Formats: sequence, C-alpha cells, structure tokens
Amino acid sequence: MDEKAAKAPDVFAPLSRIEETLDRLSLHPTAPRGLQEAVRYSLLSGGKRLRPILAWHACVAAGGDGADSLCAGAAVEFIHCFSLVHDDLPAIDNDDLRRGRPTLHKHAGEAMAILAGDAMTLTAFEVLLDAKPAHLPRPELIRELAHATSAMIHGQVWDTLGGLPAGLTPLDQLRLIHRHKTGALIRASCRMGAMCAPSGPGFEQALAAITRYAEDIGLMFQVVDDLLDVTQSAEHTGKRTGKDIDAGKLTYPGVLGIEKTREQVDSLKRDALTAIEPLGSRGAALAELCELMSTRTK
Amino acid sequence: MDEKAAKAPDVFAPLSRIEETLDRLSLHPTAPRGLQEAVRYSLLSGGKRLRPILAWHACVAAGGDGADSLCAGAAVEFIHCFSLVHDDLPAIDNDDLRRGRPTLHKHAGEAMAILAGDAMTLTAFEVLLDAKPAHLPRPELIRELAHATSAMIHGQVWDTLGGLPAGLTPLDQLRLIHRHKTGALIRASCRMGAMCAPSGPGFEQALAAITRYAEDIGLMFQVVDDLLDVTQSAEHTGKRTGKDIDAGKLTYPGVLGIEKTREQVDSLKRDALTAIEPLGSRGAALAELCELMSTRTK
Repeated sequence: MDEKAAKAPDVFAPLSRIEETLDRLSLHPTAPRGLQEAVRYSLLSGGKRLRPILAWHACVAAGGDGADSLCAGAAVEFIHCFSLVHDDLPAIDNDDLRRGRPTLHKHAGEAMAILAGDAMTLTAFEVLLDAKPAHLPRPELIRELAHATSAMIHGQVWDTLGGLPAGLTPLDQLRLIHRHKTGALIRASCRMGAMCAPSGPGFEQALAAITRYAEDIGLMFQVVDDLLDVTQSAEHTGKRTGKDIDAGKLTYPGVLGIEKTREQVDSLKRDALTAIEPLGSRGAALAELCELMSTRTK
Repeated sequence: MDEKAAKAPDVFAPLSRIEETLDRLSLHPTAPRGLQEAVRYSLLSGGKRLRPILAWHACVAAGGDGADSLCAGAAVEFIHCFSLVHDDLPAIDNDDLRRGRPTLHKHAGEAMAILAGDAMTLTAFEVLLDAKPAHLPRPELIRELAHATSAMIHGQVWDTLGGLPAGLTPLDQLRLIHRHKTGALIRASCRMGAMCAPSGPGFEQALAAITRYAEDIGLMFQVVDDLLDVTQSAEHTGKRTGKDIDAGKLTYPGVLGIEKTREQVDSLKRDALTAIEPLGSRGAALAELCELMSTRTK
C-alpha cells in the first residue's frame, strides 16, 4: 500500500491551496461577526475537500491549470457545507456530531445554523460572480452550480420526506435519490473544474468523458457510504453509524446485501476508469482519486 | 380619496401578469411533488407582490416595457418568499400565521419548510439564468440579487441574534438592520426592474434616481411596518401584532415615539418623490406606489 502510494500521483497536493482559498473567501467584509464565525466553524473544520480536489484534477484532466479551478471548487464546497448544516438540523437528520465535533446548531444554536446555511448558499454564487482568473466562463459555472444545488435539495426531500415517483423498484429509488442528493454536486465539481480549463480542440470530448466519470464516482461514493454505515463504528467515521438502518431508510446493503453492494462498487469503479481512459496521463489523478474513493474507510 | 385614486395610475394593473408568471415558474418539471406543493403553498398565497410591482414600474420609469421585468420581479419574489418561510420557523421568529393562513412549517412540517426555503433560493437564480427576453443583462441581474439576498440574511442575523457593530446609536442600529433586512431586496427589486429596460442615453441617470428612490421607500416600508405593529390589530395585518415590542426588539416608535416616527415616514416619502422627479411622467406609477406605501394599513 505504501509502495503503491509512493508511485501514485499525490492527489491531495492541492489541499493547502484549497484551504487557503476557503479561509479567504469565508471572510465576508460586512457580514455580522457571529455569522462569519458560524460559517467558518462549519467550513474550516478539516473536511476531506473531495469536491474542490475533484474540481482541481478535472481541470487538469481537461487540459487546464488546476489553480484556475480554486474559486469553482470553493463555491461547490460552500454549497456542500450549507447542505450538511441544514441536513444536520433537528427537524431533518437531527445529528449532534459532524467530523467529530458538535454540529453547528449544537454549537451556535438552531437559528444561526439555518441562517448560516442560507448565507453559505449565497456566498457560493457570489464567489462565482467574482471568480478568478477573469477568463472563466462565469455564467456557465453559475448555471452548473444552480442546477446541481437544486437537484441536491430534491434528493434530500426524497430521502428525508419520501414522495418518490410511483412504480420504481427499490434499487431505482435508491439511484434516483443518490443521483440527486450526492451525485449532482460531485458531477458539478468535476464539470465545473473542467470548465475552468481553456476550451480548445478536444475540450468537449474531455468534458463528456469527465462527466461520465463523475456520474459513476458520484454513485460509487454513496454506495461506499452505505457500506461504511453498516460495517464501521462511529470512531472511524466521525459520525453516528447504523443510523440509516435504524431509521428504516433504503440502503444499498439493505437492498442488495453486502456482497452484491461490494460488486456494485467495483463495477462503478471500472466504468469510471474506462470513461477517462481517452484522457491518458492527464487523467491519472482522477483515476487515483477513484481508487481511493472505492476503498475509503471514512 | 376615491377621486384621487381614479386619477392616479393603476399601479396594480400588472398583478395578473405577475401571478401568471409566479404560477408558471413554480412548476418545476422534475421536483418532488411535495416540495412543489410546499413552494406553491407559500408563494401563491395572495401576497401583495410589492417587489415584482416595483420591478415593473421601475422598468417603465427607466424607459422599458414593464413586461420585460417579469422574470426579474419573480426572482425577487422567490427570494422574499424563501426569507418569510425561514424567518417564520420555530427557531427564528416562531410564527404560526402568515397572510391569515398557517405558516409553511405548520402546514407541511419543519423539514419541508427548511428545504422549500432552500429550493426557492435556487429557483430564483435559475429563473434569472433563463430570464426572458434574451437581451436582459442576466449576469448583472444575478449579481444584484445575490448581493441583496446576502445583505438580507445579514439583516436577519442582526435582527434576530444581535451582534451589531459597537458604538451605534439605537437609531443607527435600526437603520443598519432595516437597510439590510428589508431595504436591500426592495432596492434590488427597483434596480433589477430598471436594468430590464434598454440601456440607452440617460439610462445611468435614471438608474441612479431609481436607486435613491428605492433606498428611501425601502426604509419607509419598515418604518410603516413598525408603526402598524403598535397601532393595528391582527385582524388588519393578518399576522400577530405587538410582537416586536413584546420581544423587546428595537422599533422606530420605541426609539422615536409615534409622532416622530410619522414625521420620519413623511420625510422619507418626500425624499423618494424628489429623487424620481427628473423622470417626469415615466415615474408616475413609482410616485403613486410611494404614496400608497406611506399610508398602507397592512
């Protein structure tokens, strides 16, 4: 494992640039101080930054400079963080623990958590409005993020409150929920990162390949999450486990069994890797990320 | 009063076009049905539509066709409605009644109210991304709405949770809260409406005049609201009254007394009317709206 890691690209190399960007963008010059503290408490709490990392490497895979994706990746991370804060609220998932710390509503109160979530949504779009460098296709980035965020909220409604379209098998229900709830934002991370690359010859093909990759890893991410929920303890995941099963929610292991769920992970991984084969070495970091995501333990 | 009304422009003539637009835009083709019902319950409940009406007449005042402002006005109304739904939540203002009906969290549950508010924010931006007619300055409209919504949330934080900058007089505290909480979105309604007019000669001067008007009526709106809270019953306002005083909140009558608060309304009205004088007859509907807002009873 260590030997393999030594040869593989260091996919987390952009992490310090990403953290710097999030730190800078979360300092709103005129916001109430308490709101800013709440936003920073949630946002700067050592998340994996999977979405900005994906944006960076998708930008490279599409022929760009990864650093050009920093604003786009940060905007997606603001939306991701808003969704965690609202989903954790007592009326929705009622979670007290997130990344091993009290959730925002436990730390700063429910009113602040609601309003900080709202504020982060807006900051995401404000970040894109002023995204640098100036050549970025800002309206297209805004469109991508708005549609993905909308889809994410739809997925959360289905997951929390039900009301799925009639006639779907349990597996199709799961796929519909997760393609929206988790998949849409992972897809947007990759596509927005790619859109920060110059749109020269071959760009459209690269974007299409990255989009297919993103859809596969987005679903895989959730399948792995469901597996971790039944196979790992809170100590590993930093949050309460077994809660999906406790809540009577549909999960992949619940529908398919653990073995078939593992096969599903392998199959999605193969599809994702196949999708980016045409990108050659430019896609190496995306391939490595896919490997890591398929075997993650938290 | 009737004679005067007969001569004045019918400022509410665009109402049916505005309602049609909101009805159409609230039908999201792929959204969960329950979410769509929640959004429509809140949005299509007979509000005054002050903000789309302002957008329409500001568009006319800037030399445009009022109908070109329909999408911009609707986007602002989606944001206004999101803010009402979240502000009504138990953790924030804890209101059970809105426009004479149960608030959304009483009607559809707290989780749905949180998520419907989130969804409406996104819809507002999606509406602007596809705003018609095609010549509209969409990125500028999005920028205007994003900054105003952000400011509105800041105002709500100060109003609900405190934490105002130190050293302000009570009157300056009130102005800071209301310029953000109510004023920013009223300003955006007028500016976005004006921005839907063709930007020919004189446009920048017209936009500046409309902006000054909007800032004055935005503050006036809140001063009148504070007056109504102490002088009218729930029967008139369709919501619980006296609650600001009960909650120990700063209000204009509380700081200035009722008489000086009435003088404040007159002074803001005069300033607003003076600001749009250079627009001549094109500003007649904005002037009439200002008169109506200064004497409204709910």
